[in-house]
Amino acid sequence: MILIKIGGGKAINYENICQDIAELSKHHTFVIVHGANALRDEVAVKMNYRTKKIKSPSGIESTYTDRQALDIFLMSYAGLMNKKLVAIFQKHGVNAVGMTGADGQLWKARWKKHLVVKSGTKEKLIQGSLTGRVESVNVKLLSLLVSHGYTPVICPPAISYEGELVNTDNDWASAVMAGALHIRKMVSLFEAPGMLENFKDEKSLIPKISYDELDGYLVNAQGGMKKKILGAKKALESGVEYMYWSDGRVNEPVKKALQGNGTVIYK
Amino acid sequence: MILIKIGGGKAINYENICQDIAELSKHHTFVIVHGANALRDEVAVKMNYRTKKIKSPSGIESTYTDRQALDIFLMSYAGLMNKKLVAIFQKHGVNAVGMTGADGQLWKARWKKHLVVKSGTKEKLIQGSLTGRVESVNVKLLSLLVSHGYTPVICPPAISYEGELVNTDNDWASAVMAGALHIRKMVSLFEAPGMLENFKDEKSLIPKISYDELDGYLVNAQGGMKKKILGAKKALESGVEYMYWSDGRVNEPVKKALQGNGTVIYK
Repeated sequence: MILIKIGGGKAINYENICQDIAELSKHHTFVIVHGANALRDEVAVKMNYRTKKIKSPSGIESTYTDRQALDIFLMSYAGLMNKKLVAIFQKHGVNAVGMTGADGQLWKARWKKHLVVKSGTKEKLIQGSLTGRVESVNVKLLSLLVSHGYTPVICPPAISYEGELVNTDNDWASAVMAGALHIRKMVSLFEAPGMLENFKDEKSLIPKISYDELDGYLVNAQGGMKKKILGAKKALESGVEYMYWSDGRVNEPVKKALQGNGTVIYK
Repeated sequence: MILIKIGGGKAINYENICQDIAELSKHHTFVIVHGANALRDEVAVKMNYRTKKIKSPSGIESTYTDRQALDIFLMSYAGLMNKKLVAIFQKHGVNAVGMTGADGQLWKARWKKHLVVKSGTKEKLIQGSLTGRVESVNVKLLSLLVSHGYTPVICPPAISYEGELVNTDNDWASAVMAGALHIRKMVSLFEAPGMLENFKDEKSLIPKISYDELDGYLVNAQGGMKKKILGAKKALESGVEYMYWSDGRVNEPVKKALQGNGTVIYK
């Protein structure tokens, strides 16, 4: 079983990705996780909602999820993107079943009701956040679906122990899921050829990174890349042998990723 | 197995409905279908989208679904309402799995690309409509989930034979699904005590309607009620023995419906 994480950037070619997975489905089974951040930002603008950004004490930036942000999140992730991906997969003969981490308690998360955030040089506590960290996965439900020929297509939110819908970091959740499913190969497709030496120069691709080198890259990583690196660390610690970071904008993106065309991260 | 259709009106008490189903789940299994029309209208207003209404030659009014309307539909049905219901169910200990008719090809529909609509006294053909009529149901997937302890929570859209997401009449789809699942008892909860003699007078409840009487009620039925009657006809023709129309605004709404507190439609 291969786990594919599809990023939510505007330039991602979903048609190519689904077509590629459909071809590879003759020989492999897949579990898909996807984002929808570009779509979420579009919906937020259309609904006149100003997205709030927060920074953790360790400097990781993320979107602050209050009730309204969660609604916009549900609309764009579970509503628009998840169902559009399901339809593209169906067109290519893959019997996709779209779900969030809340459905069947697929992703069980610890709710972080109070968040410590960095505001300038100070730290402050904010309340009412609807975010959580995924701790366990309903492997039985995923296995049930996959063994009957269905391809799960999953996105946040997760569900807390209290039964609350909570936004969650997709890279972390994917890594926890990869561990629970004993996944050996994991692919992450986004809007770059892989990990870059200089994030402004697409030619500065780093073809290989060992687990021990990841911390070194963490120091200078920008925004979402920090989360990707932490997700990769967690994935390798959970049993993933090869994590392929590769370009989600090209044709045959999954085949190319598995051939090592992007960055291969290994233990 | 009991099929419950939950209407999408603003006054529907989802908390009460889910709690009631949770209690009844000790002795019954359920498949849930839901609407979200009030929520859809709210989202459409927030997104500055003017919903277009059309009327069929036989006088049935419905929402016209173009690409943008389908997006708003996905956001409010599959995104907001479906996942909120899943979370309420989870809080009450029901392991709900939310899906649309597109997931796992649950609801396969014939795409009505061209629609004949009534415009004043004339009829005209409009193109590009993203609607369809459900013709078959993936019973295997539903049985797989229910037999493993999951409660499917389903809403439109359906998926066409071409793999297109298509909006579909929920009453009709529920009736087709009831037939496919050999359902004997079906409950439909909405914003009225049942079928009313005079739709402005909630005290004018009609306690019993036989299959043969349904056509008579069709003549004077208003808007959504026409579709409900056609859905009830189809359900009874498909093997449903008792269709309970009842109030979705009260406490213990499902128990009350099954006790015959609303309108009981029978063959």
